Amino acid sequence: MTKQIYRLRQSTRPAPTAGEPTSGPLTAEELQLAARNHSMPLEALRQDVTPPGLHYVLTHFDIPDADAASWHLLIGGAVERAQELSLAALKKDPAITVPVTLECAGNGRSLLTPRPLSQPWVLEAVGTAEWTGVPLAYLLGKAGVLAEAVEVVFTGADAGIQGGVRQRYARSLPIREAMRPDVVLAYQMNGNDLPPQHGYPLRLVVPGWYGMTSVKWLESIDVVTSPFMGFQQHMAYRYQDTADDVGTPVSRIRIRSLMVPPGIPDFFTRKRVLPHGPVMLQGRAWSGEGAVTGVEVGIDGKWLRAQLEKPAGPFAWCKWTLPWVADPGEHELACRATDATGAVQPLEQNWNYQGIGNNMVHRVSVTVE
Amino acid sequence: MTKQIYRLRQSTRPAPTAGEPTSGPLTAEELQLAARNHSMPLEALRQDVTPPGLHYVLTHFDIPDADAASWHLLIGGAVERAQELSLAALKKDPAITVPVTLECAGNGRSLLTPRPLSQPWVLEAVGTAEWTGVPLAYLLGKAGVLAEAVEVVFTGADAGIQGGVRQRYARSLPIREAMRPDVVLAYQMNGNDLPPQHGYPLRLVVPGWYGMTSVKWLESIDVVTSPFMGFQQHMAYRYQDTADDVGTPVSRIRIRSLMVPPGIPDFFTRKRVLPHGPVMLQGRAWSGEGAVTGVEVGIDGKWLRAQLEKPAGPFAWCKWTLPWVADPGEHELACRATDATGAVQPLEQNWNYQGIGNNMVHRVSVTVE
Repeated sequence: MTKQIYRLRQSTRPAPTAGEPTSGPLTAEELQLAARNHSMPLEALRQDVTPPGLHYVLTHFDIPDADAASWHLLIGGAVERAQELSLAALKKDPAITVPVTLECAGNGRSLLTPRPLSQPWVLEAVGTAEWTGVPLAYLLGKAGVLAEAVEVVFTGADAGIQGGVRQRYARSLPIREAMRPDVVLAYQMNGNDLPPQHGYPLRLVVPGWYGMTSVKWLESIDVVTSPFMGFQQHMAYRYQDTADDVGTPVSRIRIRSLMVPPGIPDFFTRKRVLPHGPVMLQGRAWSGEGAVTGVEVGIDGKWLRAQLEKPAGPFAWCKWTLPWVADPGEHELACRATDATGAVQPLEQNWNYQGIGNNMVHRVSVTVE
Repeated sequence: MTKQIYRLRQSTRPAPTAGEPTSGPLTAEELQLAARNHSMPLEALRQDVTPPGLHYVLTHFDIPDADAASWHLLIGGAVERAQELSLAALKKDPAITVPVTLECAGNGRSLLTPRPLSQPWVLEAVGTAEWTGVPLAYLLGKAGVLAEAVEVVFTGADAGIQGGVRQRYARSLPIREAMRPDVVLAYQMNGNDLPPQHGYPLRLVVPGWYGMTSVKWLESIDVVTSPFMGFQQHMAYRYQDTADDVGTPVSRIRIRSLMVPPGIPDFFTRKRVLPHGPVMLQGRAWSGEGAVTGVEVGIDGKWLRAQLEKPAGPFAWCKWTLPWVADPGEHELACRATDATGAVQPLEQNWNYQGIGNNMVHRVSVTVE
């Protein structure tokens, strides 16, 4: 009943996507987004930590031209003591470093049929970095969150138009998530100042959640007493069946694994060729919902249990390996991970209207010589 | 006559591209390449120096998993004293730092009709970095180039298949270019170790030439006494009219300018909106053939001379600015640069079979409110 009323109220709601999903060819707009944003070449799965330029980046609008000297963070709303902090002041607060795997909620979207019209990721919109900064809970503690607060809203400096709505990029977190000790306001990535495209001078990093939550170019934090209804929270990033479905919000990263494609590639097709004999298959697995408990590697449809290494932290990917003796011929390799909640990657993708939360098994065809 | 004989000899030559140019939709293979490689968001034109992750990257094959400790550079062929150098040894040699604008020879390819099948760049395959390392001429001097030498061949660690040819990425330079004092074997980009995707631990940087010349993950330098006939020299990176045309080799970067799109973007279409009133239009211009001597900015078809700033070096882009008072309505902005050779950017693109050397005028449509 509530949902019905809600839908009526939403009859003039802006479009969450750029049009109905299509089975047609890739559009010029999608190519333009693919050229602007970038994913992580799968061979970078070899490394624990992903450097800038290999770590995926999605920028909804433009990368702001930030001036760290004049930049300030405002913390206000339902707090006892509003704060205005310079970067220098923030850097004097206690700092933590958290290794975090971030993945775009739309990773894999271009493989869906029909294909939602947005950033056309293939499979590689992921990366793991060490984020250093001040725990959000520490700053919220200093500000004093009032009892009636329900969410914390994070607003970046990046401005633009989406779904016909003019906006600055903004997302919210429930209070209980915002008070987690590992949620960080980061001013360093992998030990250096944030690169411009990763949110310089300051960004939020929420371990375990899809990347849309980790607001970049952070300028203000507002503690609010009713749920945030901004475009990126209420229209975008929802699991919907249709445009009219209010859907459910996207939050934690679903279990996924990817493989370093073995052998050498063809430039254009990326098809792989490798010599026969022993080869160590390897990749990474991660989940925002619980620890990775297993990875199976499929070789021509037969699933074998891979060896897991301990991850660098509870929200960092873990390495998996499986030795294989490759016979000459055509083979299909695959990987499929399971997490502590029992969630396992699906063999076929579950379609949804925005193309979100795709975590289908990764398959790699190889020719062994 | 020579050309005729040459063509006959080439009847079994491998295909330079992945198929005949097409007017059809973007293929899954092209999208895959667009997802792997990345260009520079145009707002990064604001900065003199482009950081990793914003600087464009094209990797033909996979990014090698380099181990700097065991890595060695071999210098051999037609030299008096072959050399084998560790990275530590190289770092003891005299070093220079050169600011260089690099651009992919295929930049703009996706805008051609019909469209050559390769990396589908839009407009942003460019970047400017400060490259630090040992002058190539210094090392060639130590090795002692023999009088009969004609070219120097550079081979990277990256291996794969292209046009049906198994290869390691390799390119050559004529001796006179190799002996230029500003050609550098770089181990740093912008003051830090090279990132993996930019050639760690060592790459060649040839100022003024399109990026394909600046071989990454450099492992060997061979001085040769006849022209190098490797795939990336002799098949790829040639100005051809048809697949059968032997064509002419691609070398120096053609005059080009790009503009920071003013205002704010729509997420999907990237269409720009800005308020009426004064706005400073800005961008960068560069040429590998001679200094940039002028940039004109087109406003609704009327060309105005922009102000140029002095570039950081002879092969670094120069900033241009033009103040504009924006009237409400729809406008088309453009920029067009000229270099010291008199070359000027064309209004319409010159098509060629591989989609190389595109330097058409950049146009940006804006809505002024």
